[in-house]
Amino acid sequence: MRTSRDIRTANRYGVLRQIIASSPTSRQELAAATGLSLATVATLVGELLGLGMITEVGFEDSAGGRPRGLVAVNASGGALIGVDIAETYVHVELFDLALSVLARTEDDVRPGESRPERLVGKVAAAVGSVVAQAGVEAARVLGVGVSMPGQVDRATGVSEYAPNWDHWRDVPLLGLLAEHIAYPLHLDNPLRACAVAELWFGAARGRSDAVVVNLGTGVGAGLVLGGGVHRGVSNSAGEWGHTTLVLDGRPCHCGNHGCVETYVGAPGIMRHLRELSPDSALLHPEDQTATVDALARGVAAGDPLAVQVVRDTARCLGAGIADLVNLLNPEVVVLSSWVAATLGEPLLAEVREAVARHALRRPLAATEIVLSPIPTDPVCLGAATFALEGALQAAGQRGPTATRRTPAPAPAPAPAPARSRTAPPV
Amino acid sequence: MRTSRDIRTANRYGVLRQIIASSPTSRQELAAATGLSLATVATLVGELLGLGMITEVGFEDSAGGRPRGLVAVNASGGALIGVDIAETYVHVELFDLALSVLARTEDDVRPGESRPERLVGKVAAAVGSVVAQAGVEAARVLGVGVSMPGQVDRATGVSEYAPNWDHWRDVPLLGLLAEHIAYPLHLDNPLRACAVAELWFGAARGRSDAVVVNLGTGVGAGLVLGGGVHRGVSNSAGEWGHTTLVLDGRPCHCGNHGCVETYVGAPGIMRHLRELSPDSALLHPEDQTATVDALARGVAAGDPLAVQVVRDTARCLGAGIADLVNLLNPEVVVLSSWVAATLGEPLLAEVREAVARHALRRPLAATEIVLSPIPTDPVCLGAATFALEGALQAAGQRGPTATRRTPAPAPAPAPAPARSRTAPPV
Repeated sequence: MRTSRDIRTANRYGVLRQIIASSPTSRQELAAATGLSLATVATLVGELLGLGMITEVGFEDSAGGRPRGLVAVNASGGALIGVDIAETYVHVELFDLALSVLARTEDDVRPGESRPERLVGKVAAAVGSVVAQAGVEAARVLGVGVSMPGQVDRATGVSEYAPNWDHWRDVPLLGLLAEHIAYPLHLDNPLRACAVAELWFGAARGRSDAVVVNLGTGVGAGLVLGGGVHRGVSNSAGEWGHTTLVLDGRPCHCGNHGCVETYVGAPGIMRHLRELSPDSALLHPEDQTATVDALARGVAAGDPLAVQVVRDTARCLGAGIADLVNLLNPEVVVLSSWVAATLGEPLLAEVREAVARHALRRPLAATEIVLSPIPTDPVCLGAATFALEGALQAAGQRGPTATRRTPAPAPAPAPAPARSRTAPPV
Repeated sequence: MRTSRDIRTANRYGVLRQIIASSPTSRQELAAATGLSLATVATLVGELLGLGMITEVGFEDSAGGRPRGLVAVNASGGALIGVDIAETYVHVELFDLALSVLARTEDDVRPGESRPERLVGKVAAAVGSVVAQAGVEAARVLGVGVSMPGQVDRATGVSEYAPNWDHWRDVPLLGLLAEHIAYPLHLDNPLRACAVAELWFGAARGRSDAVVVNLGTGVGAGLVLGGGVHRGVSNSAGEWGHTTLVLDGRPCHCGNHGCVETYVGAPGIMRHLRELSPDSALLHPEDQTATVDALARGVAAGDPLAVQVVRDTARCLGAGIADLVNLLNPEVVVLSSWVAATLGEPLLAEVREAVARHALRRPLAATEIVLSPIPTDPVCLGAATFALEGALQAAGQRGPTATRRTPAPAPAPAPAPARSRTAPPV
């Protein structure tokens, strides 16, 4: 059951999300947009002012009434760091509180560099580098969110299983990082990162039920249900890539057969291209990115083979997305990650047609299918958002209104220092 | 976003659910079981006492402290009616507030009797009959919940589509029933009814995330997510029967191919039996119930054909349930409805093995798969629970603590009269 503290944290997220989306804004507008009472909004705005996350920025006339106070996000009130660990790279970005990127690093992970100590060293160096690049005081960094592929335990900070690194089992990733990084650390996986990014800043904002379909080397679905991220009982919800599309179909690295991922993940797309035309110039045998880029250019140029590969992929994708539509009845399905971004509108058009052929009429009519509108790396943005959510939750746990009677959850990250409303820019 | 009213309604459900499960019980035990504060529990208990749904039943010693007041459900504080409309029958049951059955009717729906006016007449007569049988005063009936297969609009009371009645489109079912029935009416479908029944009284009680798999003529999955029923944006979530198990597989009446339902619904099971052995004595060509009964007896007697049919069905079922486990990461999967009840433990054992072969390790380890423990018709019980939830919600909407500022939702059912704590038995 949700306690009053859970609802207060969710409401704090919702109000800050709305302020970031519509700064400057008034308490009255926030109440209308969130459905919360004006009194609740006023309390939450007061808390966010006290944390220095927002500032008062003047007044607006209200027809005949008292002028209304306006608030806006205080971009310089803190910094957030997002870490995107992938099979072949580590991206780290530092954001201000308006979630604009102030600094970034990109680093390759070569074969042999994925041992835990080596990788942790890379991440720690990159975090130090973005803080130095941005010229941010250490005390202003509210936290670091880390996205790690596969199955992760958020509570303990352990990365249990990474689909492409066989040697990687039960790595205490946050524990190792904490030896190098003094900021509060938060761990989750890319499905959750993309879902949170869309919920705060993208196509799922203001939606109660949304599915964020991640199309990359791996494939999955971040779930937003009831206005929040659905994690499941052991934080492994969203493994849509490992649902069956073809009983007894292609073998999958998960041990099953016919999984969605084997048809619509980048390696599955390459396999289909190879089966249709083994010698095609579109195929870059060892390079997924180059192959998907070539397919996108081929479609733009009207190359029949590229068009067929994208259409066949969209057909499988459409059947799999129709399953999500029929099962979950979401308001929006968002296509995210690099394969979706690269294949873009032509893929989207084919997917919409395929979903319409497979889904039931009533849920289909209620669902929009869109490309992610987030222009930067959604995983870094989502990971930074974990840090923002963590800071908001920690603030609530030491707030004066806390009255929880049940046992406290696992220790919160070290509280971020309170900031004054007149803090100078970062 | 959830308002404070939503959370208060959910908490009221949770406290009454716990009282029904553990009467007599103290406010302190309720706080421990629900995670709510003692103050919140005391307020909600006060409301339920005021509604006459529970009563004070004495005190228990607390080690050294003040004696604790005990409360229990007031079984005679009201009556609830559940209506299960199916393709071939209408079942109606009247329950007391402890959800014990006081009266029931069962009526066949013969071909040609499914025109809306005819069916509405049948339901109205049955409702009148159970009230008379039970000798309940009309003023004590808190409401009638109606379960109708297919896609329904709860807000308007319209049954939009019934999968087995082609002539049945956009029938204003509650409007038609209201011409004959004066009690508050609530409409939803059997997936939701079974999910609510398991959440209040069965294997999903106290669980945050559960899937109730309905195996009958049609197939679907009622979803309990975040401690409540997940309905989706247009109340059509749960259409797991129409997710793809075999791309380009068997044609389905929904227009798609290879849907889960075509393999594991009763007609799909019969088709498989016919394909394996067209002249088998197990097969009753026009009678699903007789065929599934014969299969169950065959398995018990060790008949190899029956064993194979159940094993092959369980294999498809296991792949489809593994999809739910991987996607939603539930605590429990409950097998419900008549095919599951008839095939029982042998089916369950095969399903567990098949799910273990298909699901990912982490979500599999977190999931229990069980048969529904509800001994009576779960659809009637769930439909009656809609009426109970409706009565609790209506009570909140006219309560003194209501402070909602946003526009009010659709008109609530007529408020049930408040009941005194000393109301005589029904």
